[in-house]
Amino acid sequence: MTGTGPDRRTRADVVVVGAGVVGLCAAREAAALGLSVAVCDPEPAGGASFAAAGMLAPTAEARPGERRLHALAESSAAAWPEFAARLEEQSGVAVGLRQEGALSVAFDPDDLRALAEVVDVQISMGCKAELLGARECRRLEPALSPRVTGGAFNPGDNQVDTRAVLRALLACLDHAGVTMLAESASRLVVQGGRALGVQTRTGHLVEAGTVVLAAGCRSGELAGLQPDEVPPVRPVKGQILRLQTNPDEPLLTRTVRAEVQGRHVYLVPRVHGELVVGATMEELGHDTTVTAGAVHDLLRAALAAVPDVAEASLSEATARSRPGTPDNGPLIGHGLTAGLLVATGHFRHGVLLAPATSAALSELMQGRPVSGPAAAFPALRFAAAGPASAAVTGPGHEGTV
Amino acid sequence: MTGTGPDRRTRADVVVVGAGVVGLCAAREAAALGLSVAVCDPEPAGGASFAAAGMLAPTAEARPGERRLHALAESSAAAWPEFAARLEEQSGVAVGLRQEGALSVAFDPDDLRALAEVVDVQISMGCKAELLGARECRRLEPALSPRVTGGAFNPGDNQVDTRAVLRALLACLDHAGVTMLAESASRLVVQGGRALGVQTRTGHLVEAGTVVLAAGCRSGELAGLQPDEVPPVRPVKGQILRLQTNPDEPLLTRTVRAEVQGRHVYLVPRVHGELVVGATMEELGHDTTVTAGAVHDLLRAALAAVPDVAEASLSEATARSRPGTPDNGPLIGHGLTAGLLVATGHFRHGVLLAPATSAALSELMQGRPVSGPAAAFPALRFAAAGPASAAVTGPGHEGTV
Repeated sequence: MTGTGPDRRTRADVVVVGAGVVGLCAAREAAALGLSVAVCDPEPAGGASFAAAGMLAPTAEARPGERRLHALAESSAAAWPEFAARLEEQSGVAVGLRQEGALSVAFDPDDLRALAEVVDVQISMGCKAELLGARECRRLEPALSPRVTGGAFNPGDNQVDTRAVLRALLACLDHAGVTMLAESASRLVVQGGRALGVQTRTGHLVEAGTVVLAAGCRSGELAGLQPDEVPPVRPVKGQILRLQTNPDEPLLTRTVRAEVQGRHVYLVPRVHGELVVGATMEELGHDTTVTAGAVHDLLRAALAAVPDVAEASLSEATARSRPGTPDNGPLIGHGLTAGLLVATGHFRHGVLLAPATSAALSELMQGRPVSGPAAAFPALRFAAAGPASAAVTGPGHEGTV
Repeated sequence: MTGTGPDRRTRADVVVVGAGVVGLCAAREAAALGLSVAVCDPEPAGGASFAAAGMLAPTAEARPGERRLHALAESSAAAWPEFAARLEEQSGVAVGLRQEGALSVAFDPDDLRALAEVVDVQISMGCKAELLGARECRRLEPALSPRVTGGAFNPGDNQVDTRAVLRALLACLDHAGVTMLAESASRLVVQGGRALGVQTRTGHLVEAGTVVLAAGCRSGELAGLQPDEVPPVRPVKGQILRLQTNPDEPLLTRTVRAEVQGRHVYLVPRVHGELVVGATMEELGHDTTVTAGAVHDLLRAALAAVPDVAEASLSEATARSRPGTPDNGPLIGHGLTAGLLVATGHFRHGVLLAPATSAALSELMQGRPVSGPAAAFPALRFAAAGPASAAVTGPGHEGTV
């Protein structure tokens, strides 16, 4: 279907702009509906998803002011085991889902009081959370610093190996015959108010009646969008480290979170001895520079929580931009232009929200409204005119703006 | 001259084992004498020299108990400008020699008293050294932490861009037609008490009447050496970071050294905005693992000395093994086996000592004794029988054992 030369054209039923975890899920759902699919991304699986730690942590990430987002996170976390099983079955790739829960630790009485308050909030929001003493924490994770005075255990907060998930999704698309174009889509092609496809930066025309915009923090850069449908995403820089420990003597069994001198840190242990240490949150514009200061702060905090991290090898330091939105919730739904679907703005939750986003996109591509908690996050909820456009088939604005 | 197949043979006048800064200098001197040369190294310019910061710091490295080593360092440092000029002329590669001196800084009165004592020792050893107040330190280096209370300036301690030096040396060898074999030499081939060349791990025979053993901390691993001529080198692990700063607004003009919570750190600013931050000293055997603890400690110390390092990008973290010796001095001279020359054990000083080592090797390859301060470091000074072997043409044992 893909031509070459100056007038290169590709035709598909659906073109997906962006091959992060959300874009790859969109393509997989489209293919599952029997649609032909093309995906445009100059660096597939190379953006925020590449950096992501893969925490599936609806509880630790719950904020009292974000109840709808929490409901979405809970429902997507609950869908992960089934989602992972089907993904592994389809792709033949193990995605490293681990369900040992997560432990947030405290170093002094003030930390511990703060953690107790967090646990109260989590319980009031219907989450599983339990305050533990120092001895119980160390029983769960013997490598914890002797300075740890207690902690909070969230049995429902799990993790998955993000890069394995990306490999699995790519394998599914490969099996399904999806066309992967390693090019940047620069323009939405519109005729008579309908999306006709996208044009890439090199002039390649990808014709498709449905365009899924899933370009993360660059989703607002696609030319040809109507002003009110430009996704209000902003880049939020994250820096994250990958350490390697002896796989036969893992330092940790579950995710450990800590706050050290104002720096929040998490340590996520993978099956094969990898330990992911993240992450900074920096409002810096597009910037993928790994800085000495961030690496230092992350290591300092990780060493304070788990001193034996000192002996781990530092195998990677990565910086990427997450797609932040005004209310920290994703943008999932129709645009104003007919044929345009938006699935972006997943901020720190792209991996966690993959199952729920996949389900919502499948509904939208079948011409149905979004059901369940994802319906609270229509793509146009921040538009001047509100989401009550003729093109919106989902429910009205229910966001938490 | 190089064959292929199971009976591969190469013939040369000189074969050099090891393509670090010392081995490459040996090959260059041999070629300059009109000799044909082969060099064996599985990873040319990839060992300790690859990591080296390139400090030419005879003063800051001076120890009262190492006066002969200091004399060698001083004479080699004095030879560097001429050595660099000829190397640049021959190779067409700029080697980034910078002669702005070096500044050691203190953070509290104790540090400052210790620095004053060091300066007294340096002056007693004939070095240029000057104690500076906080204001003078910041006038020299405005990016220094406001916590700096004073410092010691060593105008004779300079630096060179090590990797540029390695590129330049490789270019010289290329121009001279030197054969580079990317293989590991595993055995010294000896017949009738004379070196006939080396055999590589893959069975390649490199025939040469003169063998220069310059394999850094692996110099003791060559089979076929007589027990008393095995160089007493041990690996001393060093970890070092490379940061990138804005080349138009360099953070520093000269090398800054500091001691922070027991961690000695130096920051070496290159011409194009690179900042080298080193280095650990770890007696760990062969180990090129970059550890989280070392990266943290180096960054913590660098940030304490120069806070704006936080904004620099961390471009590289490297670990390599230096060739340490019992008296910290190099091993330069004949082995017991006729035709064997040894040039190794340069520990932390391979780059600094390159000019002096080159001169000594040139003398040895011309059948002359080593002259000048390098004569104090014969290769056999630690042998049970002492260096008074028939094969030794250099002066007797003058080391500082």
